[in-house]
Amino acid sequence: MEKPITFDIEKKIPGTLARAGKIHTPHGIIETPAFIAVGTKASVRALTTDMLRDLGAQAVLANTYHLYMQPGEARVRAMGGLHKMMGWDGPTMTDSGGFQVFSLGAGYGSNISKILKDVASLPLLKERDEEAVKPKLVQIDHDGAAFKSPLDGSIHYITPERSIEIQHSIGADIIFAFDECTSPAETRAYQREALDRTHRWAKRSLEYHRSKEISRKQGLFGIVQGGRYEDLRKESAAAIAAMDFDGFGIGGSFDKDDLHTAVRWVNEILPEGKPRHLLGIGEPEDLFLGVENGCDTFDCVAPTRLARHGTLYTKEGKIHIGNAQYADDLGPIDAGCACYACRNYTRAYLSHLHKSREMLGPMLCSIHNLYFIVNLVKGMRQAIIDETFGSYKTDFLKKYNSQR
Amino acid sequence: MEKPITFDIEKKIPGTLARAGKIHTPHGIIETPAFIAVGTKASVRALTTDMLRDLGAQAVLANTYHLYMQPGEARVRAMGGLHKMMGWDGPTMTDSGGFQVFSLGAGYGSNISKILKDVASLPLLKERDEEAVKPKLVQIDHDGAAFKSPLDGSIHYITPERSIEIQHSIGADIIFAFDECTSPAETRAYQREALDRTHRWAKRSLEYHRSKEISRKQGLFGIVQGGRYEDLRKESAAAIAAMDFDGFGIGGSFDKDDLHTAVRWVNEILPEGKPRHLLGIGEPEDLFLGVENGCDTFDCVAPTRLARHGTLYTKEGKIHIGNAQYADDLGPIDAGCACYACRNYTRAYLSHLHKSREMLGPMLCSIHNLYFIVNLVKGMRQAIIDETFGSYKTDFLKKYNSQR
Repeated sequence: MEKPITFDIEKKIPGTLARAGKIHTPHGIIETPAFIAVGTKASVRALTTDMLRDLGAQAVLANTYHLYMQPGEARVRAMGGLHKMMGWDGPTMTDSGGFQVFSLGAGYGSNISKILKDVASLPLLKERDEEAVKPKLVQIDHDGAAFKSPLDGSIHYITPERSIEIQHSIGADIIFAFDECTSPAETRAYQREALDRTHRWAKRSLEYHRSKEISRKQGLFGIVQGGRYEDLRKESAAAIAAMDFDGFGIGGSFDKDDLHTAVRWVNEILPEGKPRHLLGIGEPEDLFLGVENGCDTFDCVAPTRLARHGTLYTKEGKIHIGNAQYADDLGPIDAGCACYACRNYTRAYLSHLHKSREMLGPMLCSIHNLYFIVNLVKGMRQAIIDETFGSYKTDFLKKYNSQR
Repeated sequence: MEKPITFDIEKKIPGTLARAGKIHTPHGIIETPAFIAVGTKASVRALTTDMLRDLGAQAVLANTYHLYMQPGEARVRAMGGLHKMMGWDGPTMTDSGGFQVFSLGAGYGSNISKILKDVASLPLLKERDEEAVKPKLVQIDHDGAAFKSPLDGSIHYITPERSIEIQHSIGADIIFAFDECTSPAETRAYQREALDRTHRWAKRSLEYHRSKEISRKQGLFGIVQGGRYEDLRKESAAAIAAMDFDGFGIGGSFDKDDLHTAVRWVNEILPEGKPRHLLGIGEPEDLFLGVENGCDTFDCVAPTRLARHGTLYTKEGKIHIGNAQYADDLGPIDAGCACYACRNYTRAYLSHLHKSREMLGPMLCSIHNLYFIVNLVKGMRQAIIDETFGSYKTDFLKKYNSQR
């Protein structure tokens, strides 16, 4: 059977895990390494899909949790799925909803006791084992996670099968297995339990997916977890690698050290011939580390979120356009940048838009930041192919960190 | 001396004041009748200038008051003026600031007593006549208007000369004389006084403008006021017509009746060979009435403001995209509409964006509404040329009002 997702390696850097390749999807090719734009609710904030194409974005990742909540999977399906709904005919991904269920769920704060009661009263949960009863708005059991909608307070229960079913309705080219994304603050004992769940859920996600005809058109990536524990990370990589996924996601909370350690441990074990997505990473230095340590694709809300708040990437580091000095600065955001904002507008105008809270401000800033990050990673790809990755990285970071 | 603004009439409708023409400006031609997009702070809200061009907008009107407040005339000038600042190389206009000084000034509410004290304490005002001391945040005297900045509480004083000087710094192709825009609620005695001031200020605006070299590159329009009083409107039209303006603005608060009366009284007196701009009018029915009664150009924030709140024009009348029925509606905003939003997106997606407060919602809705109004007025122009204005109007309004 033809696989929906295939991966070719074009070039590798000896002595590192870095590689340049091509992910073939039903909606076209992603040339890797690549930064994937995040379109949480089937919209990359403040950008049209034309702007996205113009700035060089190859693919969009939408969030299953958010689309499940609003407008709901049935409506996404009725609109013809993610691609048609948002007017993007290139490759797409959806995450599994696991990260949002756990991270957003824990943030509901004041309603904690109410939720626990509500969740406990669900018939579904009564018969399930109580291994993970914790003081959170999310209640996790053997089969899945129950959580409360922040929109209307309704209670939802997501299992691996439901996550995949929802992702089938959304219809992205690449979907992810349902996992539990733990906080680094959790105990080792909890990480151990959660990891076992993630592996069981990965197997169930895969079995459910393969049982459906649609698995010919959507590829499923398994997610490796394990926190910062070498043994757990390696165990997780081996467990997930042993299943017949179309590619892999590496989940968890990362800092710079983890990119040298946890990510490397995992990628030394994952099979070379399948693509690897590092979830939620987008800062320039981290992207270099991710690429060196064997990751092919990345997604992160940082470029667009920072842009909406007026923080802009430049080759000399980040600047905040609201700072007084930019009000009279007639240069572009980043000298030499070829993005639409830099070709047409001055820092002084962007400063004015920011202070005036004009929507055009976030629009132009988002174009710039996404252009910057997307093209930084494209540059890494080219440098791998040209065998100049080391100097590309050194030159970039030297300049980028020069103002610190 | 070559005039910066000239006007050709191409066709007239016998028995009405309607005409199709061309306004020649230093930045190109405005084919009239035309709806001018409002870019208050040198940005048409939620749109890039590329989007503006794509939807057929011919010209942009910015607000002098807002740009004077933020980023300030010196910065606009330093950025190369309005065109270069905002990346719009087509025709531009700035209003005189009079409308905002009076209408926004009156809205400061709780600080009224403080302001009156502040204004009275200004040396500038102490020596001036007190004819217009009223319980407002704006204090008007013989020479101009003092008002408080809503941004930082600073006190500003604008005379006709200052208004023109600021508009010279901003650099629009068409600028307007400083006027007093009165509320219809004012007494006739007050309207009388205000009208005399407006005429004195018109003369001073014109004299100051003509004394500067820049008047070769910017055309100045005089503004006719007079409220709803036939004698005052006619007197104002005659007084303003007698001055050597490059064109005219018709100011005031209008309802539908005024478009048949006040606007007609004025345009029967104004010289036929110069363009006439009806300030602040943008609803479809009002635009038809304005065109029939001799106006050539219009501006209004309504299309973009309504769009940001989810109200959309359709050929069957306005709809609110937040209404439940649109969440599952797979049709475009307006069937047959060729705008970017209608060509690419469903009402269901727009509904989702609106409910999710995604910025793309206001962007797409603004594109649609501005496309709708700009092209409605373009259609009027074509109908005048084709001698089908009557049926164009009847057919449009019959359908537009059919759902009421």
